[in-house]
Amino acid sequence: MVKRIVLGVQYDGLSWRGWQTQPSGDTVQDRLEAALEKFALVPLATTCAGRTDAGVHALEQVVHFDTDLDRDLFSWVRGVNAFLPPSIAVRWAHELNAEGESAFHARFSATARTYHYVLYNEPVRSPLLAGRAGWVFRPLQLEPMREAAACLIGTHDFSAFRAAECQAKTPVKTMHDIRITQQGRMFVFTLSASAFLHHMVRNIVGSLICVGNGNQQPAWLQSVLEGRDRSRAAPTFMPDGLYLARVTYDPKWNLPQEAGNALPLFGLNETAG
Amino acid sequence: MVKRIVLGVQYDGLSWRGWQTQPSGDTVQDRLEAALEKFALVPLATTCAGRTDAGVHALEQVVHFDTDLDRDLFSWVRGVNAFLPPSIAVRWAHELNAEGESAFHARFSATARTYHYVLYNEPVRSPLLAGRAGWVFRPLQLEPMREAAACLIGTHDFSAFRAAECQAKTPVKTMHDIRITQQGRMFVFTLSASAFLHHMVRNIVGSLICVGNGNQQPAWLQSVLEGRDRSRAAPTFMPDGLYLARVTYDPKWNLPQEAGNALPLFGLNETAG
Repeated sequence: MVKRIVLGVQYDGLSWRGWQTQPSGDTVQDRLEAALEKFALVPLATTCAGRTDAGVHALEQVVHFDTDLDRDLFSWVRGVNAFLPPSIAVRWAHELNAEGESAFHARFSATARTYHYVLYNEPVRSPLLAGRAGWVFRPLQLEPMREAAACLIGTHDFSAFRAAECQAKTPVKTMHDIRITQQGRMFVFTLSASAFLHHMVRNIVGSLICVGNGNQQPAWLQSVLEGRDRSRAAPTFMPDGLYLARVTYDPKWNLPQEAGNALPLFGLNETAG
Repeated sequence: MVKRIVLGVQYDGLSWRGWQTQPSGDTVQDRLEAALEKFALVPLATTCAGRTDAGVHALEQVVHFDTDLDRDLFSWVRGVNAFLPPSIAVRWAHELNAEGESAFHARFSATARTYHYVLYNEPVRSPLLAGRAGWVFRPLQLEPMREAAACLIGTHDFSAFRAAECQAKTPVKTMHDIRITQQGRMFVFTLSASAFLHHMVRNIVGSLICVGNGNQQPAWLQSVLEGRDRSRAAPTFMPDGLYLARVTYDPKWNLPQEAGNALPLFGLNETAG
């Protein structure tokens, strides 16, 4: 019987050209599928919940593939990890039914995605945060950024924050929540939406920084959103601090998701919705 | 007039073969001196407080060099950082008198060194902690490790935890404090001593893990210490989680040290003495 194996996958995106397979072979999907094949001795094609760009990290990407192999479930974790580089690991595995219209699908069953953007706000850069957090040396004010972000909540045409190469069918997405927290010199932007356009988080964070550093007033963000014109928003901000934090599914699938535990590794309280 | 410039230097040790200059040129000292020369246009020889091994990080290494150049103090930070790779940065600069017997010396004026060892205790490894924290998959108990560590406080012959290649004149050092804290799946071992022998922190942490996982009783550590025999202690533990956290000097030097602020970046409360 064919089973659908679901994996929770964590990665440091710094060394990889994003999630999606490329001829060069240096993507997370390429390395994961190579490790799966070494472990299973047959090729296994994977589908992920959200394709991440080059340099973007995942606390918990969700991936599925189909197989009729009969293996102990935890061996999909331990066995596959033995063939993965230190910057990628399978954190858990879960088995579901592969058949029928109502079968679980890593991408299409997802009801929301949550990203964290971690930002270091200090005059001097920190080598221990290089590649792990964005860096802004001009002082940022928390309250104006919170005030500006409020206009993004709800269902909107997000064309103003959409990359030219975006392949989404529609620029209309529903933003469920944006939380911005500050702990000393660190800011964390947590965005939850039905789905995100290409570069949408980095474009929104870049624009919020323009408000936080005083270059723009909070009301400017609403005019950018309403203008639906990418050229009016701030440039795409660096990928370093971006983490795919959590993919939300119906609890009926019983996935052993753990992303809520992962962020405190970086000294930041859980801020995801 | 010759000035002694003191720098606070932070680095991610993962890509470097330790602090001390080598013919291969891939050490932190090599890169720092290359950046200083590019900025100052003359060679500048540096002296550090504590030479770190390959893979070991520094929240705040302290370094000095002498120069008669007349530069704005902050330009030793901003200017030199422009020539350093992302994994190394000067965090602050301070100017002192270079002359006289009582001149500040990064190594000889230091009265104590504090190291953190950050350890991740989970069945599955975390890619986002690779190179930044040690990893132990067997469950560890905090209290037996604390009980065992107590015997190391005070002035002892630490030969049992000394690497064969150690060049220190004497194995007798004074351990001021060992604190072990746990936050969920993370343990932090904070050791403060007059000075450390080569591999001493990693050898002590490896032995404490043997107690924490139940392989040894707490009293075993005292017998290892008293035996002064390296072969009785645990193997040298991986460098990944080791951070030179703070070098202690007489407050009269007024150094703008900041290491107390740096550890919370990793979600860990300040535990240094």
